[in-house]
Amino acid sequence: MGKFDNVPSREEVLRRYFKIWTPMAETESIPVDEALGRVVASQKTTLYDLPVYRASAADGIAVKGDDFKDKMPDTSNFKLGVDFVRADTGDDFSDDYDTIIAIEDVVSMEDGLKLKDDVEVIPGQKVKDKGSHVHKGEIYLTKGNRLRPTDLAALVMGGHKDVAVIKKPKVAYIPTGSELIPEGCTPKRGENLNSNSILVENFLIEIGAEPIIMPIVRDNKRDLKEALYKASSKADIVLISGGSSKGEEDFNTKLIEKEGSIFQHYVACVPGFPLGIGFFENKPIVNLAGPPIACYNGLDWCVRALIDRWYHRKSLSNLEVLAIADDDIRVQKECSLLVKLNLYYDEDNKLHAVPLSHHKDSLVSCLTTEGQIRTIMGGEQIKKGDTFKVELLVHPNEIPRK
Amino acid sequence: MGKFDNVPSREEVLRRYFKIWTPMAETESIPVDEALGRVVASQKTTLYDLPVYRASAADGIAVKGDDFKDKMPDTSNFKLGVDFVRADTGDDFSDDYDTIIAIEDVVSMEDGLKLKDDVEVIPGQKVKDKGSHVHKGEIYLTKGNRLRPTDLAALVMGGHKDVAVIKKPKVAYIPTGSELIPEGCTPKRGENLNSNSILVENFLIEIGAEPIIMPIVRDNKRDLKEALYKASSKADIVLISGGSSKGEEDFNTKLIEKEGSIFQHYVACVPGFPLGIGFFENKPIVNLAGPPIACYNGLDWCVRALIDRWYHRKSLSNLEVLAIADDDIRVQKECSLLVKLNLYYDEDNKLHAVPLSHHKDSLVSCLTTEGQIRTIMGGEQIKKGDTFKVELLVHPNEIPRK
Repeated sequence: MGKFDNVPSREEVLRRYFKIWTPMAETESIPVDEALGRVVASQKTTLYDLPVYRASAADGIAVKGDDFKDKMPDTSNFKLGVDFVRADTGDDFSDDYDTIIAIEDVVSMEDGLKLKDDVEVIPGQKVKDKGSHVHKGEIYLTKGNRLRPTDLAALVMGGHKDVAVIKKPKVAYIPTGSELIPEGCTPKRGENLNSNSILVENFLIEIGAEPIIMPIVRDNKRDLKEALYKASSKADIVLISGGSSKGEEDFNTKLIEKEGSIFQHYVACVPGFPLGIGFFENKPIVNLAGPPIACYNGLDWCVRALIDRWYHRKSLSNLEVLAIADDDIRVQKECSLLVKLNLYYDEDNKLHAVPLSHHKDSLVSCLTTEGQIRTIMGGEQIKKGDTFKVELLVHPNEIPRK
Repeated sequence: MGKFDNVPSREEVLRRYFKIWTPMAETESIPVDEALGRVVASQKTTLYDLPVYRASAADGIAVKGDDFKDKMPDTSNFKLGVDFVRADTGDDFSDDYDTIIAIEDVVSMEDGLKLKDDVEVIPGQKVKDKGSHVHKGEIYLTKGNRLRPTDLAALVMGGHKDVAVIKKPKVAYIPTGSELIPEGCTPKRGENLNSNSILVENFLIEIGAEPIIMPIVRDNKRDLKEALYKASSKADIVLISGGSSKGEEDFNTKLIEKEGSIFQHYVACVPGFPLGIGFFENKPIVNLAGPPIACYNGLDWCVRALIDRWYHRKSLSNLEVLAIADDDIRVQKECSLLVKLNLYYDEDNKLHAVPLSHHKDSLVSCLTTEGQIRTIMGGEQIKKGDTFKVELLVHPNEIPRK
């Protein structure tokens, strides 16, 4: 029997899981100046007209349109404060005036008003009417919008000081493994640095979740159980890594099964195929594989999908571009493979991808690539020289040249 | 004389400005877990080998390779702790053993060891050697890398607790204008809501700068001068908005000229062409135009370029995609125009762009578009139905369907 017999694809697992898990995200009202990146919970409309009354559309002077109605008047006796006043871009001005002449068309304002010879003045010109910048009641942000700096400015301009957003999902993470030591410690024989906590924490921040990172738990059933209950009491979603496979101390999946439920153990997605997903105290729980690249893979396909589901949005997946394969990429029938790719531009500005192997290449090199690909189960083989779609993990201008 | 005669393009202004401004960014050491998005200051190498000694590459048992050297031994008398021990993925094991057999190949470990019939055991198999995950001294992050969650994990795995990064530029912003009122206040006739502070603050955060947002300053020379000196004493770069044009109370440009220097006033880039750039107390200063879309334009082409220059990197510009124009887009000879675009996918999944006008359309609708284009001075006209490149301001999956 093969390792992947009867093991479902990640798409199939998510499809089935989302049939039974439909989060009803709560909303909260927060100050607009703390809302960068947050997701709008309900449609926003503007509260006021802007300009409130009217405003000059140019730096210049305000005059009385009637004076210019039929023909150009003799302005040599015009008096500042009587026949005209200063009115610059955005300024409101007295009701005595209704027309703006741009300052570029004014030769002098001393001893009467002197305008340029070829100036035409149409009564009512260069005036922004009430509501011409912002019209009261205008709909301009809808549910699901992720707030950008310009959206925050629009909210303020629309009269809002606070905004209703979808609450971020609180996601607890329990790193497990008796061999793990905290960051910055010097590893001794048999020990390994815990790099998953910082990975999970910052990955969660980037996808719009609120991380709750718990201390390392040794492979000890009592401590693991206690940590799971503690995590689920604090969080909306629980993540735990390690202990998902067939090792002697791989208690986690069994423990989740016993205290909660395992919806699916093993997914045809490598590395990290012993991933488990289920429910614990009625909350989603994901048991990620322990090795860092496997843990990353689970975050990238599974946890990201849970967070998108939380917000009821389509996946904010990595953008794809075309690249030339510098080596063959193994495509398997029975599982999807995450292949990390070093990207570079050649002399002709063509993008190339060098596949790494998470078996042969170092972990740090696999974690720091500019690109990646998830092969399609049973998809076409990718041969050296082929052009294929790669996921970008950096800005195109951050890809090196060779 | 035309408004744009002898007014340089934004590319020309930046080219000339960067000839004389080459910031020597300082570095600082910060904890790895606070370094998301920060820019690496110097090449990083790994400090340790991982595994420190060696590790099992599978969940299974460790045996003595010599026992399996010539042929499969009789394992019915093998004793746990003598002839074999448990060793799971990532575990180190006693020096008495050197070979791993996967748990899947083990039938029983009680009353001797029973393996599956067809198992082959090659001495030394399934063991990860010292340094095979991480090799001491490996170079894996270089100057200029923006740290992602996976990079932070790689830093921890490489033995680092702290990381040297380029200091963020501190950027002070002074909003000016007697008509401005703070967010959340109800505007009365002649008043306008200050939406630029929140725009500038969050835009700066997104491009990697540290914002210092100052209170609104009225159009009063003494207060403006005081604010400018205060800002330049705190910041590496100073921004001020409003007062850049020809209005009666447009003191800012003149004040910067008098107390510092103006390198260029007016740039052939609309909206916001009265933008001024210069130096104040030997620090870069940008006088942005006051209207929100004009202010945004200056942030997007000018301030973004200053920050990229600070980090000595290529522009992290918005990504571009092709779209169909749903209307003509005016392309001018004498200036580049920022045109905001509403984007949508049609029934055939084709991307369309509807150009807005910052004169006719409301400010809030202009601020919240999914895309934009900067027309090229004297470039080809874009006609309704043409396919053209647009800058994406949202994730492609956030673009609505019609």
